[in-house]
Formats: sequence, structure tokens, C-alpha cells
Amino acid sequence: MAKFVVIGERISATAPSINRALAERDPAPILKRAKEQLDAGAYYLDVNIGPAENDGEEIMKWAVQLLQSEFDNVPLALDTANKKAIEAGISVYNRSKGKPIVNSADAAGRIEYVDLAAANDAIVIALCNGEGIAKDNDERMMYCQTLLERGMEHGMDASDLWFDPLFLVIKGMQDKQMQILECIKMFSDMGLNSTGGLSNNSNGMPKHIRPIMDSAMVAMCMTMGMTSAIVNPCDLRLMETIKSCDVIKNNTLFADSYLEV
Amino acid sequence: MAKFVVIGERISATAPSINRALAERDPAPILKRAKEQLDAGAYYLDVNIGPAENDGEEIMKWAVQLLQSEFDNVPLALDTANKKAIEAGISVYNRSKGKPIVNSADAAGRIEYVDLAAANDAIVIALCNGEGIAKDNDERMMYCQTLLERGMEHGMDASDLWFDPLFLVIKGMQDKQMQILECIKMFSDMGLNSTGGLSNNSNGMPKHIRPIMDSAMVAMCMTMGMTSAIVNPCDLRLMETIKSCDVIKNNTLFADSYLEV
Repeated sequence: MAKFVVIGERISATAPSINRALAERDPAPILKRAKEQLDAGAYYLDVNIGPAENDGEEIMKWAVQLLQSEFDNVPLALDTANKKAIEAGISVYNRSKGKPIVNSADAAGRIEYVDLAAANDAIVIALCNGEGIAKDNDERMMYCQTLLERGMEHGMDASDLWFDPLFLVIKGMQDKQMQILECIKMFSDMGLNSTGGLSNNSNGMPKHIRPIMDSAMVAMCMTMGMTSAIVNPCDLRLMETIKSCDVIKNNTLFADSYLEV
Repeated sequence: MAKFVVIGERISATAPSINRALAERDPAPILKRAKEQLDAGAYYLDVNIGPAENDGEEIMKWAVQLLQSEFDNVPLALDTANKKAIEAGISVYNRSKGKPIVNSADAAGRIEYVDLAAANDAIVIALCNGEGIAKDNDERMMYCQTLLERGMEHGMDASDLWFDPLFLVIKGMQDKQMQILECIKMFSDMGLNSTGGLSNNSNGMPKHIRPIMDSAMVAMCMTMGMTSAIVNPCDLRLMETIKSCDVIKNNTLFADSYLEV
């Protein structure tokens, strides 16, 4: 099987320094976070420019070109509620290292993001969610089906829809965690790719606990067949766990130096 | 589901200091390792007295009484190739905190350890192995069946056989690791308990890597339904991972202090 795909989440307008850098077209803070994440083992970088209602197209084009020119056409996930900004980003995107990822569609108000990905030969993160949180895996798999059919109707390969079960907060929804893992297993049994914002599970936990809980969770997800996650690659324990699970799954060859690669 | 059962492996005649303490009936080194393991979260302690051909019965009785009197009848796994020593240990064993564990039977030369466990209302670790290492899961499940039937014939509850898939070294048998995990899944699907010397997977790896690899492995095993492992509970990262997986599996209730419990 292929190596687990780490999508680095740290270039995000939710961080004040990045929000400012995007608004002012200041490369330094963005390049710094990009380099840190790539050095730590990220393969894709997520570029979340926020809602970006006014100048989203300009911002996304600028960010895509900035990152790809500096880091050898690093593959990117384009993340914003502004669809035109995603299209603008793709228009200048170099796909030599991987297709762009559209982040993200759901089975309700954002289903057109599937169409957008299809029209641009992109990957799409397909959140198995409608209005509100799915109550069980029957509902999640119904959304999965809806999203999958939408993609196929528009000529996509099934492998270009990366299904996201929507990770739930342990504090409050502890008894739902195995459902999420079983949902990933269902994706995997159907031969589908999967991803997700895994660290949502540890939201609200003390800061020192989060890498411990996230690492346990990613190993459990990889056991169930998850193929990617949107995470902070600068979390060393998390990356060590991902690399170790890739060895156990025989996705990468073991060498004594495997953690340094 | 029940909490994962950690069996502490550190009271073992393979350690020179413990070997000497057993021979000289010197309590201090044994009590020290017992306390460390219990403080770290072990539930059972394994007591490996080696082959103990001559004075095994005396040694095992002494060790059982020493540990149970000092640590409030701590439950124990009795581990030796000397069957009479196991019987002697059980004769003085207090089961108020849990049945004794006989460590271990296999489907070849040590199948009588199942009978021994049955005759003494004990748990038995049932290694799914014959002569040499099983070549695939068909062979492992054949041994599982043999061991299970042997136990049932002698009136055991199936839950008192804890099946061990025999963990294999990644360095050399990397491509067999998923087989072991799938074997655990088969035990779990049959409603059977499972355990094993999990750290065998990382044998021969650099010392600093072993806790990282073992932690990834235990999370993967727990995802597949493993119910126990024979490990070093003083490996902090491993114990943190086990406790986190118990939270994700909803076996224990989350609290911000869950790692300290």
C-alpha cells in the first residue's frame, strides 16, 4: 500500500500571524511555517485563506505561486469558502508533485465543491456530513454514497474523493469514537481513500495531553485503513507514530533511521 | 468493554539481578521491580523463574507469597517450564484480585499447560504455535482451535484461554506484521481474549526507537481487539498509549487526569 499522506494544517488564516501575512502579502511567516512542516514530513500543505470574500482570488494565486516556487512545486490543499478563489488557485497550480486538493465538500451546502474538483481534475476532501453532525454510520455512509455518486457522475475517479468521517471531540462524545473508526474501516473496505482533521478528537484537553491522544488516535485510524490526515506535522510524537505504523503496515521499508526520513 | 490488562514482564530470571534474588531468596530486588511496575499501571505481574528444574516449587511458592503479601494479593502470571513449580505456586495463591495465569501453553509440546490451568481453575496463555513459527493465519487458527477445544474438553470457560498470536520481529519479518494484527482481529471476532509479548516486534532495533514502535504496535493491536499484553509497564510512552486507546475505545472514562490514574 501507499505511504500515509500527511497534509500539514499550519498555514491557516485562523492563526493571526498567517492571516496578517496573507492580507499584507508578506511571504516570510508563510514560508517559515511551510518549511517547518515540510522538514517535519508533511507531503501536502493545506492553504487555508479563510472566507476571503473580497480578494480571495488574488490571495490564493499569490499563496500557491509563492509556495510552489519556493518549495519545488509542493502539492497543496486549497481551503476556503470562496469557490472562485479555489479555481483561481488551481489556474496557477503546478501538478508535477500531485493534484491539487479541494478542501472541502460536504453532502449539503458544499456539495458543489465536488463538481469544482471534477471540472479541474482535482482531489476533493468529501466530508460525510449533511446539516449538523451525522447521528450514526448509516447516515455517514449515506452521505458518502451521495458524494461518491456526485463525483462519478462528473467523471471523477473514486480514488480522487478522500472521505472525511468528521472527527468528534472525545470530551463530550467519548462513546462515538469507535463509530468514527468503524466508518474509516467501511471506507477502506470499499477501497476508498480517507482523511480528516484528526486532532479534533482532543479538542479541549490539556495541551500536554493532545499529542499523546492524537498519536493513539492516528495509529487506530491507520489500523482501520485511513490513508491520510490533516494534522500538525510539527507534532513530533504524531509523526513518529505515523512513520511507525507505515512500517508495521509494510508501506515503507524499515531501516534503523526510518524516523529521520 | 473491559480495560486492557497490562501484565508486567520485569520480574524475570532472564535479568541477572532477579535470577540471583530468586536463588538467594532475597526479597529486595523483586519487591523493587514489583512496586515500579504496579506504580506504572500494571495489573498482573509475570513471575518468570526460568527453567528452575531443581528447587522450582520452593522458589515459586516463596515468590507468590512474597509478592501477594506485600502488594495486597496482586494477581500473578506464573511463568516457568517446570509444571510442578506452577502447581506449587497456585497452591499458595490468593485469587481475591484475579485468577492465576499459567504462562504458557502452546499447541505442541506444551499443550498440557492447558490441562494444568483447567485442573486449577486458572487462566492460561495459549500460544498459537506448534513446532516452529506458524506460516500463516490458517495455521495460527488451527492451533487456536486445538487449544480452545482442549480447554473446553477439560471444562474451562473460553474466556480463560488468552490467545497469543506470537509477535514477530519487524527486522526480518516486516511483511508479516499485518498478519499478526489480523490474527488478533480473528480472536476478537470469535469473542476470545488475547495477549502476547508485544515488544518482540521491535527486537534488535535501536534502544530509543523501541518505545516508539511498541506504542504504535499496541495501539494497532488494541484497535484489532487485543485485550491484554505482556509488556514493560515502566515504558511511559507505551502506558500512555494504552490508557489513551482505552479512552478512545470507551473502556475507561476520560478525565483530564486519566494518564495519572
